[in-house]
Amino acid sequence: MATKEAPTAACIRVAENQVRSASLPITPVMTSSILNASTGRNIYLKCENFQRTGSFKSRGAVNAVLTAVKNDPGVKGFVTHSSGNHGQALSYAASIVKLPCVVVVPRGTPKNKTDAIEHYGAELIVCDPTPTSRTETCLKISEQRNFLIIPPYDHPDVIAGQGTIAVELLNQVADLDAILVPVSGGGLISGIATYAKHINPNIRVFACVPEGKMLQECLSEEKRLWPEPPKFLQTQCEACRLQQCGNITFPIMCSLIEKQVFNISDKTMIKATRFAFERLKLVVELAAGLSLGAVLYHCDQLDASIRNVGVILCGGNIDLSVPLPWHQDDN
Amino acid sequence: MATKEAPTAACIRVAENQVRSASLPITPVMTSSILNASTGRNIYLKCENFQRTGSFKSRGAVNAVLTAVKNDPGVKGFVTHSSGNHGQALSYAASIVKLPCVVVVPRGTPKNKTDAIEHYGAELIVCDPTPTSRTETCLKISEQRNFLIIPPYDHPDVIAGQGTIAVELLNQVADLDAILVPVSGGGLISGIATYAKHINPNIRVFACVPEGKMLQECLSEEKRLWPEPPKFLQTQCEACRLQQCGNITFPIMCSLIEKQVFNISDKTMIKATRFAFERLKLVVELAAGLSLGAVLYHCDQLDASIRNVGVILCGGNIDLSVPLPWHQDDN
Repeated sequence: MATKEAPTAACIRVAENQVRSASLPITPVMTSSILNASTGRNIYLKCENFQRTGSFKSRGAVNAVLTAVKNDPGVKGFVTHSSGNHGQALSYAASIVKLPCVVVVPRGTPKNKTDAIEHYGAELIVCDPTPTSRTETCLKISEQRNFLIIPPYDHPDVIAGQGTIAVELLNQVADLDAILVPVSGGGLISGIATYAKHINPNIRVFACVPEGKMLQECLSEEKRLWPEPPKFLQTQCEACRLQQCGNITFPIMCSLIEKQVFNISDKTMIKATRFAFERLKLVVELAAGLSLGAVLYHCDQLDASIRNVGVILCGGNIDLSVPLPWHQDDN
Repeated sequence: MATKEAPTAACIRVAENQVRSASLPITPVMTSSILNASTGRNIYLKCENFQRTGSFKSRGAVNAVLTAVKNDPGVKGFVTHSSGNHGQALSYAASIVKLPCVVVVPRGTPKNKTDAIEHYGAELIVCDPTPTSRTETCLKISEQRNFLIIPPYDHPDVIAGQGTIAVELLNQVADLDAILVPVSGGGLISGIATYAKHINPNIRVFACVPEGKMLQECLSEEKRLWPEPPKFLQTQCEACRLQQCGNITFPIMCSLIEKQVFNISDKTMIKATRFAFERLKLVVELAAGLSLGAVLYHCDQLDASIRNVGVILCGGNIDLSVPLPWHQDDN
């Protein structure tokens, strides 16, 4: 049973108006005859790599920021800790409402990432590279400057923002049977499932995760079986290193998504990412290789009745200043 | 003055019906707020990297093959010499009409290219890596097997096929002031200019070429000033190594395109290709870096009255089995 903080489909419709008012584009849905032939299904790729800031994260950040300003026009600024896509997205969202933004990043974050965050105008504050230091630094700045914390996924407005993908996708593709979604904290899949299942309870929403996530066990028992303190997974997909899903997102996932989870090895994820580059001509990040890898290489695990499959390509922020993953020595 | 072999706008409209009947997709036009901001113009990217076989070449090949079969239902097969996009495209086009196809490639052609040609069903025949051997081998096969030679650019049906890009682009974007086109043999720009100038004589069509092409001199004097025998340019863009334009294409270019040519260094071309990957999230080949490089880094050379600019991203067949161009030692 989802908590009272879970956004409703109506919240997601409001979010959709909000992200449109901020000129976030409706991302294209692409198809590929090679992909359809090799899977024997109709595959619809929702290209969030073309979303503003290079990933779906701008949807949640923009919705959270605009909602915050609407609820309290006196809001002073925003803060989060994220060296990745959410940091860029919040920096961008704050720039829309012309408010200051601080992004806390762990010491040692690669320059290409800090550059991308600063590009949209946020101030960077460096902390020790531990989960505790990140949370504490973030909290301290929030108190000192009276800035609102916008977490990367465990927040109803962030989840509602990510759900706007489903509003678009269901308009763009008729008769979807399933949607495959990469999962880290669970904000993306929670938003998508909330809206898609409301419109059509028969649509099946599947999580695609790196190996070791333990998500299938947790969903089956509807319990947080993850070890404490929170662990990081051994995966090259930095955006999906977190083992645990959120306290708001996990109950939503338990009530709406399939118990069957696609556990994707790094090898498969990288192979799928390469397929996206070579055959689809799309620059995607490794996390997109989770959902694409599931459909490309584990399609036999999908019920034969599932014909029309939406695949979320969550972003395109792969570091191109270093060799491509399939050229790196350890792959 | 164009020769009698130059296709008309009406031929291009017929070609458009023909490529549609063969299910070649209408490629998307993409825009980018970063690109518009950095150029101060409205840039419309025509994404031929998403075309069947990964480049615009399938348009010309499909039109030539379908036209040949229509004119002579007894045609036995097709042959060409090309280790690149035209080889793949003709192989694909022949497969549509279920006729055999031979592609002559020079010894030493990389496996990824021969694989791509064979993927669509053509037979590969290896020749010595000289222009003479390529032409002679091609001619011999044509005579022995009674196969039709479909050259890569100097053929009215091929030019008309490439012109279908302009039919789409002018439907997709209103009020285009200019179109920037990468040029090697000249088939692409001849087709585009023929249709675009027929619809709107005020549209300016610009050629974007590797340094050393001598195209501006040739266009200014409307003379083939190129040295004989034909030379190859010193450029990493394999698709554009040819110095000379064709005997059919050059007169069309002289009568329709701008005398001002964008001469693009390899460094600029590679920088633009990297921009496409990193900022636009598009996998493009180096030749697309010619037109993108022109608008990104030489926009000051474009008349200030030119506001709405179409940029042809001609293809996406970059070899991703080797390091990206900006990671190669010599760049």
